[in-house]
Amino acid sequence: MLIVMDQKATQAEIDSVVAAVESKGFVARPIPGGDRVSIGVLHNKGVVEPSLFLGYPGVKDVVPVTRPYKLVSREVQPEDTIVRVGDVGIGSGHFTIIAGPCAIESEKQALTIAAAVKRSGAHLFRGGAYKPRTSPYSFQGLGEEGLKILARVREETGLPVVTEVMDETTFDLVVEYADVIQIGTRNMQNFSLLRRAGQINRPVFLKRGMSATIDEWLMAAEYILEGGNRQVILCERGVRTFVHHSRNTLDLSAVPVVRKESHLPIVIDPSHAAGRRDQVIPLSRAAAAVGAQGLMVEVHHQPEESLSDGAQSLYPQQFEQLCRQVEAIFGVHSGIDPKR
Amino acid sequence: MLIVMDQKATQAEIDSVVAAVESKGFVARPIPGGDRVSIGVLHNKGVVEPSLFLGYPGVKDVVPVTRPYKLVSREVQPEDTIVRVGDVGIGSGHFTIIAGPCAIESEKQALTIAAAVKRSGAHLFRGGAYKPRTSPYSFQGLGEEGLKILARVREETGLPVVTEVMDETTFDLVVEYADVIQIGTRNMQNFSLLRRAGQINRPVFLKRGMSATIDEWLMAAEYILEGGNRQVILCERGVRTFVHHSRNTLDLSAVPVVRKESHLPIVIDPSHAAGRRDQVIPLSRAAAAVGAQGLMVEVHHQPEESLSDGAQSLYPQQFEQLCRQVEAIFGVHSGIDPKR
Amino acid sequence: MLIVMDQKATQAEIDSVVAAVESKGFVARPIPGGDRVSIGVLHNKGVVEPSLFLGYPGVKDVVPVTRPYKLVSREVQPEDTIVRVGDVGIGSGHFTIIAGPCAIESEKQALTIAAAVKRSGAHLFRGGAYKPRTSPYSFQGLGEEGLKILARVREETGLPVVTEVMDETTFDLVVEYADVIQIGTRNMQNFSLLRRAGQINRPVFLKRGMSATIDEWLMAAEYILEGGNRQVILCERGVRTFVHHSRNTLDLSAVPVVRKESHLPIVIDPSHAAGRRDQVIPLSRAAAAVGAQGLMVEVHHQPEESLSDGAQSLYPQQFEQLCRQVEAIFGVHSGIDPKR
Amino acid sequence: MLIVMDQKATQAEIDSVVAAVESKGFVARPIPGGDRVSIGVLHNKGVVEPSLFLGYPGVKDVVPVTRPYKLVSREVQPEDTIVRVGDVGIGSGHFTIIAGPCAIESEKQALTIAAAVKRSGAHLFRGGAYKPRTSPYSFQGLGEEGLKILARVREETGLPVVTEVMDETTFDLVVEYADVIQIGTRNMQNFSLLRRAGQINRPVFLKRGMSATIDEWLMAAEYILEGGNRQVILCERGVRTFVHHSRNTLDLSAVPVVRKESHLPIVIDPSHAAGRRDQVIPLSRAAAAVGAQGLMVEVHHQPEESLSDGAQSLYPQQFEQLCRQVEAIFGVHSGIDPKR
Repeated sequence: MLIVMDQKATQAEIDSVVAAVESKGFVARPIPGGDRVSIGVLHNKGVVEPSLFLGYPGVKDVVPVTRPYKLVSREVQPEDTIVRVGDVGIGSGHFTIIAGPCAIESEKQALTIAAAVKRSGAHLFRGGAYKPRTSPYSFQGLGEEGLKILARVREETGLPVVTEVMDETTFDLVVEYADVIQIGTRNMQNFSLLRRAGQINRPVFLKRGMSATIDEWLMAAEYILEGGNRQVILCERGVRTFVHHSRNTLDLSAVPVVRKESHLPIVIDPSHAAGRRDQVIPLSRAAAAVGAQGLMVEVHHQPEESLSDGAQSLYPQQFEQLCRQVEAIFGVHSGIDPKR
Repeated sequence: MLIVMDQKATQAEIDSVVAAVESKGFVARPIPGGDRVSIGVLHNKGVVEPSLFLGYPGVKDVVPVTRPYKLVSREVQPEDTIVRVGDVGIGSGHFTIIAGPCAIESEKQALTIAAAVKRSGAHLFRGGAYKPRTSPYSFQGLGEEGLKILARVREETGLPVVTEVMDETTFDLVVEYADVIQIGTRNMQNFSLLRRAGQINRPVFLKRGMSATIDEWLMAAEYILEGGNRQVILCERGVRTFVHHSRNTLDLSAVPVVRKESHLPIVIDPSHAAGRRDQVIPLSRAAAAVGAQGLMVEVHHQPEESLSDGAQSLYPQQFEQLCRQVEAIFGVHSGIDPKR
Repeated sequence: MLIVMDQKATQAEIDSVVAAVESKGFVARPIPGGDRVSIGVLHNKGVVEPSLFLGYPGVKDVVPVTRPYKLVSREVQPEDTIVRVGDVGIGSGHFTIIAGPCAIESEKQALTIAAAVKRSGAHLFRGGAYKPRTSPYSFQGLGEEGLKILARVREETGLPVVTEVMDETTFDLVVEYADVIQIGTRNMQNFSLLRRAGQINRPVFLKRGMSATIDEWLMAAEYILEGGNRQVILCERGVRTFVHHSRNTLDLSAVPVVRKESHLPIVIDPSHAAGRRDQVIPLSRAAAAVGAQGLMVEVHHQPEESLSDGAQSLYPQQFEQLCRQVEAIFGVHSGIDPKR
Repeated sequence: MLIVMDQKATQAEIDSVVAAVESKGFVARPIPGGDRVSIGVLHNKGVVEPSLFLGYPGVKDVVPVTRPYKLVSREVQPEDTIVRVGDVGIGSGHFTIIAGPCAIESEKQALTIAAAVKRSGAHLFRGGAYKPRTSPYSFQGLGEEGLKILARVREETGLPVVTEVMDETTFDLVVEYADVIQIGTRNMQNFSLLRRAGQINRPVFLKRGMSATIDEWLMAAEYILEGGNRQVILCERGVRTFVHHSRNTLDLSAVPVVRKESHLPIVIDPSHAAGRRDQVIPLSRAAAAVGAQGLMVEVHHQPEESLSDGAQSLYPQQFEQLCRQVEAIFGVHSGIDPKR
C-alpha cells in the first residue's frame, strides 16, 4: 500500500503517519518525491485496509497495491483447478455446456427440455426450484417438488443437475438433491450463505454480482475456499451499466483477467446478460472464443408459456445451433493458450 | 403494457399475439399507427411480465407502463407512513438523525460514542454487531456480545438502537435486542430475509442495493409489507457508477421520486456514499435540503483505531457541526412541501 | 408514443392532453385501461419528442415507441451497406483488419509497423496525425507531417490509411490525405463535425461515444447520411462503466443489435476497450465470433518507446498471432448468419 | 507513480524497468516489500503516463499517484478564482443564479422569460442560439438571429448573457455577442474548441462531460487556462449511470472534491441532471446546501410549447419559489466553510 501525502504535509504529519503504520505492525518506508512524500507500507501477511490511513491529517490519498485474495489466487496455486461433476471436468480443457429452463415448472417440462439439451450436447442440466424474484407476486419456484423433479431428470438422462440455493433454511435440502449448488447474483455477497457453502463437499457455481468488481467476486469465492471447499466455478453473467439494449452488459474482459489472477474455472451465462433471445447465440460464440471454460444457457421448449424469463430462453432448435457453432469455435482455438 | 410490432409484422402475427394476450386472461387492444401496429394490454390486477411477449414473431418491443409495486405505493396509501421508534416518529415532519460507529468494538467505545452523539442531538444510535465484510479475513463484528453492548447503550442513554441483521440463523437474536432491524445493501434482494422481516413487529431499515433501481428497491420493501409489516424506512446510500472520487455516487434525485411514488419515509446515509470523511458534512446538508426525512451517519471518537470504515467516520466534533448545520437547513425548508 | 396518465387524472386533464397532441398535428387515441388511461400518439412522419408532453397535468409518464433514426435503419434499407476502400469491401462478408500505431511518430516508425501489419494480413493502416489528448501537455500528434507520412505509407505498402479528424480547421487537410476519415469517441456528438463529414465523398469511421446509447450512436451516423454521405463504418470501442480491470467495458451485444437495426457495418476496437495488451487478443477472438465485420487494433514495434497508448499496443508478433486466431474463428462461422 | 512488480518478477526484470524509468529522465526508487517489489517513480515536473510501463515484463500494475493538472489546482493557486461578469462575481461568496430557456425561440419568448427570471432574482440570462441536438431533424436553434435576440435581452434587462458555442466556424460570432461562452457536455473534450476558448478574454462556462471523471474535467479546464484564459466556471450537470428515474445522476460529491482540488468556481445545473421538472427544485436546494457557488436553471413561460427540453423547464412561478428556497438555504450556511 502507498500513502500519498499532501504537497504541504508537515514533517510532523509524516512522522505521525509513519508511527501509525508501525503501531499496527507494518513497516513504513517514506519515499521523498519531487513535490511530495509518499509512504510505502510493507506487510508480509494479510491485507491492510486503505481506510485505516485515509483520514490522517496530511494524507491526500491511499493506494492499495496488492490484491486482497489469497486462496483463489494463481500466485498461491499456479495450476488450473478442475471441478469434477460426474464424468465432466470443468476447467479441464473441455468446454462445458450447462442448459435447461430458468425454473422447473413440471416433471413433463423438465424431462422434455432435458432430453432435448442432452441430445444437442449439454453436459449438465440446470433448473431453478427456489427462484429469487424481484416481485413477491411472481412465481417463486416449486420448492422441494422442483428438487425431486431434478432428481428424476438426473435418473432419466444421466445429466448432473445444477440448482440455486437461496437461503440457509433450505440449504441442506438443496445440497441433498443437487450435484452443483448455485449461488445467484443477488446472493454473491450473502456472506452467511458463502460460509455455509464453504463447509460442504459439493461444487459451488458462484455468479458474479450485478455490480461486483472482480476483486469482490474473487473475495466471495475466497469465503468458500477459506471454509475448506475448493470446488468453485465462477460465472460471469453481465453487469449493470447505463446500456439498455441488453438487460446487462456482458463483461468478457473478465475472462482473461480471472484466468490470469485465479486458478478457478470461469463460465459465461449469456442468457441473463442479454435478457433477449436474439443476442444469446452471438454472445455464446464470443464466450467460446474469448477463452471461457463453459456456458450456462436457458432453454425452453415453450418459452411463451414459461413462468419466468421466457424472453431470453432459446428454443431447443436454437440451442442445437448454438452447440454446433460453439463447438466449432472452441475446436479452433483449442490450440490457443487461453490465458493470452 | 404496450406491445410494439415490427413495421412488417403480418396480420397473422398480430392475431397470434392478441390471442396469446387473451389466453393469459388480459384484454388486448390493437392500436393501428402510422407505420406499425401496437397492442395495448389491459390488466386490472397484478402485473404482466413483459418478457412473456418479447419472443413472439413480429414483436419488436414490449414496453411496461404501470409500476409493479402496490402496497408501498402512494396510489394505495396517499398519506405518509410514520415509523415510530420510542419517542421518535420517522417521517412525521421532523428530521431524524441516526448516528454511531460502523461496528461495535467494545462497551467503552460504544458508550463513549453514544454519549457524544446524543449530546449533539442524535435520535437513534447505530452500530453493527454482525458485519458483512468483503473479506473473510476482516473483522466480522462481535456478534451476540455486540448486541448486549447495544442493549447497554440503550439503557444508559435512552437512545433506541439500530443494528444490521445478516442472516436467518441470527435473525431472532437480533430482533430480541434491536429497536430497528437494518437490512444492508448486499441483502436488499435477499428475499428470504425480506420475507422474515415481513413477519415481525419491528421497524425495518432497508438500504438500497448498490445497483438497484427504485422499482427494485420498492419491490424489496413490498416483500416486507406483503408479509404484514408496514414499518419500513428506506435508506439511500449511494449507487455504484464509473465515478471514483467518492466510494459511491449519492443519488439524491431518489428522494423526490420515492416521496412521490411511495408513502414510506426515506433517509440518507452520506457516510457509505462518500467513503471519505471530507464529503460527509456537505452531503448531509444536501440531504436535509433535498427533502429527505433523516440521516444515518458514522461517527467514531478514534476513527484511526477503528476496526472498519475508519476513513468515513466523523470525529464527534465534526458530528456536532453536522447537526447544527443540518438543523439550520431543515429549519429553513420546514415550510416547504418536500414533495415538490 | 404512449402517454400514460395518472390513475387519478381527470377527464379534463385527458382532454387537454388529447387536444395538445392534435394541435401538434398528430393523432391521439385514448386507451382506457383497468386502472388508468393511456393515450397513443400516432405519427406518420418524423419523431415526437417525449418531453413535449411530460409536463402536462395528469401525465405520469411518456413512453417512446418507435426508433428516432431513419436513413441508417434496416427498415429503410434492408440490405447491408458495403463500404469500399480500395480493394476492400467493409461489410461485404469478409473480415476487415485495420492496424497500426496509436500515433504516427516518424516515417521510420510508421513504415516499420505498416510493413509488419501488412505481412500479417492487415487490410488498412491506421495512425493518428492529430491526437485528442486528455492533457494539453501530452504529445498531440505530428499534424500535417503525420499526414504526409501516412501518404508515404500508402505509396510504399499499398494499404489504404485511416486517420482521425479532430476539427473543422484541419478537416480539408485530413480529407486530402486519408482514405477513411475517423471521428473519435470524444467527437461522436460533435454535430458540426458530423455535418461536415456528411458533405464529403469519403468513408467515415465513427467511433461510439464513451457513454453513448446505440440510439445516440445511430443518430450520429444519421447526421452523416442525412448530409448525403452513406459510407459510414461504426466502431464499438468499449463504454465507461464501474468496471476498472479494463479501461472500458467492451459491449459486444452492440453487434447483434446494430446488425439487426442498421445496414451499416460494425467493427470492434479491442485496444481502447481493454487499455491493456493482455486482453486484446482474447477480445479480438470474441469480436470475430460475435459477428462483427472487422477489427481496429493498435500495434507498435516498440510500445515501451511509444508516445501514447503504449500499454495497449500489441507487438508485431502478437498481431501475427491475433490475425491467425481471428481468421480461423471467422472462417468457422462464415456459414453462420451473423444477424442471429 | 508506483510500478508494482509481479511476485515472481526476476531481478533482471526489475533492473530493466528501473533502466527504462531512468532513460525517460525520471528517478526510479525500488521499494522491496514483503512479497514483491514496487518501484517508485519520482518526477519533479510534468506527468508520467502510466501506460509507458504497463507492458514491461514482470510489471503487474502501475498506479498513478499525483494529479495530472497544474494551473487549475489549488496547490498552484490556493485562493478562490472569482469570475467577474458585469456586477456579478461568480465564486465571490455570493450564490449566482443563471436562468432562461433551453433555446431562444423568438424575441418575445426571450424577453418574456428574461423579465420573469430577473424579477425573481436571476443574475445572468441563459439561452441557446446554436443547439447540439441528438437528432439532425430536431430544432437546431436560431443561430445568429438568436444571438441578436440575446443582445436585445441584455439591453432591455441589463442581465449578462450566457450562450453555447458549438464549433470553430461560429466561434467568433458567439464571442461577439455573449458575456459568457458555454462549452457543452458533448464538447467537454473537443480539444480544438478548448484551445480556442483559451485564447479569448471572456469567461468560459465548462460543463462536465456525461461520463467524465473529475480529473478529465479539470484537464479540460487546464486546456483553457494553459492558453491564457483563467476565467473558467465549472458546471456539474449529472453523469450517466444505470439509473433511469432521472435523465442523469447529479453527482453532488463533485462539489466538495472540486472545491478542495481547484480554485475555480463550480455551479450546478439541476435541469439537465433531472430531465424532469419535478426534481429541479429539490436538487437546487441540495446544490445550495452542498456548497456550490451557483445554479443554472431552465425556465420557460410555456414549456409545453417549447421547441426543446420542455419537460425539464420550470414555470416562472416555480422559478420564483426556487429562488426563495435557495436563498434561504444559502443564507443559512453562508457562515459555513463550504470546503468542509
